[in-house]
Amino acid sequence: MPMVAVIDLWCNGGMKTGSPFKTVALVGKYHADGVAEPLLTLAACIAQRGHHVVFERDTAHNIGAGADPYGTLDIQEIATQADVAVVVGGDGTMLGVGRQLAASNVPLIGVNHGRVGFITDIPLDEMRQVVPAMLEGHFEAEQRTLLSARIERDGQTLFDTLAFNDVVVNRSGISGMVELRVDVDGRFMYKQRSDGLIVATPTGSTAYALSASGPILHPRLGGVVLVPIAPHALSNRPIVLPDSSDIVITITGGREVGANFDMQSFAELRQGDKILVSRSAHQVTFLHPVGYNYYATLRRKLHWNEHISDEDTPQN
Amino acid sequence: MPMVAVIDLWCNGGMKTGSPFKTVALVGKYHADGVAEPLLTLAACIAQRGHHVVFERDTAHNIGAGADPYGTLDIQEIATQADVAVVVGGDGTMLGVGRQLAASNVPLIGVNHGRVGFITDIPLDEMRQVVPAMLEGHFEAEQRTLLSARIERDGQTLFDTLAFNDVVVNRSGISGMVELRVDVDGRFMYKQRSDGLIVATPTGSTAYALSASGPILHPRLGGVVLVPIAPHALSNRPIVLPDSSDIVITITGGREVGANFDMQSFAELRQGDKILVSRSAHQVTFLHPVGYNYYATLRRKLHWNEHISDEDTPQN
Amino acid sequence: MPMVAVIDLWCNGGMKTGSPFKTVALVGKYHADGVAEPLLTLAACIAQRGHHVVFERDTAHNIGAGADPYGTLDIQEIATQADVAVVVGGDGTMLGVGRQLAASNVPLIGVNHGRVGFITDIPLDEMRQVVPAMLEGHFEAEQRTLLSARIERDGQTLFDTLAFNDVVVNRSGISGMVELRVDVDGRFMYKQRSDGLIVATPTGSTAYALSASGPILHPRLGGVVLVPIAPHALSNRPIVLPDSSDIVITITGGREVGANFDMQSFAELRQGDKILVSRSAHQVTFLHPVGYNYYATLRRKLHWNEHISDEDTPQN
Amino acid sequence: MPMVAVIDLWCNGGMKTGSPFKTVALVGKYHADGVAEPLLTLAACIAQRGHHVVFERDTAHNIGAGADPYGTLDIQEIATQADVAVVVGGDGTMLGVGRQLAASNVPLIGVNHGRVGFITDIPLDEMRQVVPAMLEGHFEAEQRTLLSARIERDGQTLFDTLAFNDVVVNRSGISGMVELRVDVDGRFMYKQRSDGLIVATPTGSTAYALSASGPILHPRLGGVVLVPIAPHALSNRPIVLPDSSDIVITITGGREVGANFDMQSFAELRQGDKILVSRSAHQVTFLHPVGYNYYATLRRKLHWNEHISDEDTPQN
Repeated sequence: MPMVAVIDLWCNGGMKTGSPFKTVALVGKYHADGVAEPLLTLAACIAQRGHHVVFERDTAHNIGAGADPYGTLDIQEIATQADVAVVVGGDGTMLGVGRQLAASNVPLIGVNHGRVGFITDIPLDEMRQVVPAMLEGHFEAEQRTLLSARIERDGQTLFDTLAFNDVVVNRSGISGMVELRVDVDGRFMYKQRSDGLIVATPTGSTAYALSASGPILHPRLGGVVLVPIAPHALSNRPIVLPDSSDIVITITGGREVGANFDMQSFAELRQGDKILVSRSAHQVTFLHPVGYNYYATLRRKLHWNEHISDEDTPQN
Repeated sequence: MPMVAVIDLWCNGGMKTGSPFKTVALVGKYHADGVAEPLLTLAACIAQRGHHVVFERDTAHNIGAGADPYGTLDIQEIATQADVAVVVGGDGTMLGVGRQLAASNVPLIGVNHGRVGFITDIPLDEMRQVVPAMLEGHFEAEQRTLLSARIERDGQTLFDTLAFNDVVVNRSGISGMVELRVDVDGRFMYKQRSDGLIVATPTGSTAYALSASGPILHPRLGGVVLVPIAPHALSNRPIVLPDSSDIVITITGGREVGANFDMQSFAELRQGDKILVSRSAHQVTFLHPVGYNYYATLRRKLHWNEHISDEDTPQN
Repeated sequence: MPMVAVIDLWCNGGMKTGSPFKTVALVGKYHADGVAEPLLTLAACIAQRGHHVVFERDTAHNIGAGADPYGTLDIQEIATQADVAVVVGGDGTMLGVGRQLAASNVPLIGVNHGRVGFITDIPLDEMRQVVPAMLEGHFEAEQRTLLSARIERDGQTLFDTLAFNDVVVNRSGISGMVELRVDVDGRFMYKQRSDGLIVATPTGSTAYALSASGPILHPRLGGVVLVPIAPHALSNRPIVLPDSSDIVITITGGREVGANFDMQSFAELRQGDKILVSRSAHQVTFLHPVGYNYYATLRRKLHWNEHISDEDTPQN
Repeated sequence: MPMVAVIDLWCNGGMKTGSPFKTVALVGKYHADGVAEPLLTLAACIAQRGHHVVFERDTAHNIGAGADPYGTLDIQEIATQADVAVVVGGDGTMLGVGRQLAASNVPLIGVNHGRVGFITDIPLDEMRQVVPAMLEGHFEAEQRTLLSARIERDGQTLFDTLAFNDVVVNRSGISGMVELRVDVDGRFMYKQRSDGLIVATPTGSTAYALSASGPILHPRLGGVVLVPIAPHALSNRPIVLPDSSDIVITITGGREVGANFDMQSFAELRQGDKILVSRSAHQVTFLHPVGYNYYATLRRKLHWNEHISDEDTPQN
């Protein structure tokens, strides 16, 4: 059976004593084509090396019979029973799983089934070579902060959640501006009229905030960035605050104002409503292959250096 | 009666033969406090100088009995019967009246009841001194272009209108991006993922487009500017096209996409819908006092030169 | 001889009666490797089709004996004797030749020996197929404006020249800012403290001005753009003026201020010096293959559409 | 003598036991008009309250005979003998003194003789009321980081210094770009072609870096920002790094490249030269009056909130 031969090639030798990861959870993006077979190959390989392999329940369901030899757990069970999760999907999938596992300290390995993302940095076709070694302890760990966000109306909490990328307060209708007041650590910062305001983590700084002209924040920077979207006052620049800051955004005007927390939306904010944002007590740990370089990811995703070899442009 | 004395002071001497403006329409922002009295003072003055004074119907209604000596016309009648309209309000009021009079060639004089605007450049308290002289022919005329915009679905026109500032295609819900395809003069320009796309006239270039990092276009420039709002691709810069261009924006993706035409909204665009934008055959003429300087307006509104006298900043 | 065979393949049939271009000048970037052979192949082909082929003198010198069968002319002679010039190089080479031929109305065809540029849009290896047909009249012509610029000190002209891309007034030393005053059509626009100010044509709008956050101007737009470089006042945005504008930049402060006109520099400007910029009476005509799409060039050079197929980024 | 009466008004009561500041150094911007008298008034007041007052040597010289009753020290002596320094000038003066006192831990109080600055937040005419109370211990202290920078050529250190605002590597001639390679913590970040690159502290983030479109960094953020100036690659955005980062900028191309360290310049960098930047071991402490609000300074300096009360702009 040729597949076994392939597995043997990558998987010879059992798990070394002392691997930090006994139970390995495999999570795949639902409905993504071509993910089942690589996941099963990986499962067979790491099981052979002595790890206990479990599939996330929906992932197992999508894969079908091939997943039968392995256990299945839902995300809440993975949080308590797994030592590491391998997530195959895109950055959005990874962020969603990360948010759900944030309280558990289960570290994540991100594999991208399409083009490599900002945080899913292992291509699907290198997964078999790269992941088993990582599970033996050959990795670089990176902590990522999350935001804890809460909507308060008349002193009552309406909604509270975690956000990995960003909290966005913006107009939720077809037109008009929002008017916001921002206070930080109990001190008035500014009032703003704009399409909205983004509060982004370092992880989120390369997502929506970047499109709105925010700066990139290194993952190890202890900061969050406030990026106004199309602000009325031209001097309303992005500002980076220590991530220990308590940020309160009060809706002071505008019709049809809403808030987004990563992908979760809360549509009907009223004047006087407050959105409170601070760093979550939880962090998420991403594991990268040895030699990981955050800047290489930036270069690749942002097409840096494209023009360095242009010998003869109008600027020369 | 002291008011008559004041009128006499500014209004001595009748209308000179050859004033281009026999019938003068006065239009005031509805419900703006403090506008009635200055309007009546102006009406008395210019009537005394021999002009035929009419009030826009709603304006007359708001003013009450003081307007009784004068005729009243609605906007459509002003379009056919007036030689000039004096608009007291803000830039928004002026744009609205301008759009309604666009087909008529009636020129507009803009008076601001609050802070001077980009296009309402005469302060309310200078109106009495400035406007009568303008009505004698002492003015500088400025043509402003409008956009003609049309929404097409399955080959049918759903909606068509004029826009003075801008046509904006954007998300109309709380989250997500729009995906647009833009063709100009029958040639494919680009696809774009963003919060939206603004097509702005020179007049609109200092409004929403400026907040979204667009350039300022001089009113005499024969151009329109396409300004993406928070575009996914960082190299998606504003582009200024000749205003003879036929621009077609096709909705290729995104949920809850809408369009705005100045203040008019059209909320429920579907995939495949097209928004066609071109220069309107109509132009609106603004009249300014002699010595008007467009750049002075920019300096005042944009706080240019603020820092020139800073002798000792960190940059020095 | 195989090369002849290739020529025959592309070059069969003589020049059709009525080609607009009898005398064709070939200009190659000096010292660029690999340009000689393609130029000679092209020369043989178009000579065989009945055109009169001449080489620019330095180009002929670089090519060596292969160019002997053809006449040689220097750029000034090309201006008066050639009907069209084919320029092989990069955008910089093309701009230089264009500036020298501006007064002559000799149109230019741009071939890039490296990556295709903004204005040299024919790849070197497609030259043999594309250029002969263009010389038969199958082309799209595009007019490009130039700037006429002059430095004036104490009422005397110190320097005057043409610029295809831009006129830049900036600090020429290691530190400090410039202080400039700008007047347009005799009206004061603003004073500015910055690293410098760029006045760019549509052609120059995709060069240095774009790096300094200027907008893209379509080549057919009758406009020039003023782009401040790192301006002290945050509201100092790019402004697009009609290209009929007379722009006067006065040095009001700063040490070691200089000016650049495309690649020509003038280093020692003093307080009170004026740089006068207006549209040149001359235009340069670029010829493009039939089907040329300016937007395709922008897409390719600016990497537009890169992200449209990203299915799963943090923003999704 | 009326001045004494005034002093008595503000200065009644002696220094309370336990003031942290026995020896107070007064430093004034040389040649600034109108500074001498307020400084002498302040000196008399705080001397009367029991502090030991000394004048910086050049300040004493500029003030003349009025300073005779007090001791004089040069900056190096202030570093070792003073407990606090009151600096009257502008932000530039304050930065210069701060850099010289960085190794000494002497805290600074900043008084602005012109418009209030980002870091000199006490207006000259409030100095007499505000400073004596601060010297009694009623203040808010704020730590500011500095950069340690070094130029290395062929393994030798050519120059090393501290920078409070920023380290800038840029072209020092009239034209051309620089080509730089940036490595952070031993990892390659990118190559860049641009006018230059700014490495700014939080203090410097509101200076030159802000003009070049950098974000604002809160003073308590443990970060530095890299801001490219007119970068060739449009996706070259500002990036904020932890201030524990070791940044190495290598000159890889460009003519006439130089470096600036706050106001100090080093003009003749060569290809291969390295500029090494890291956080200095020293910090500078600024003292602010009780109730100080960093955001209030930003609002005032950046004209935030200007437009919030605009009732009727084109955007409405």
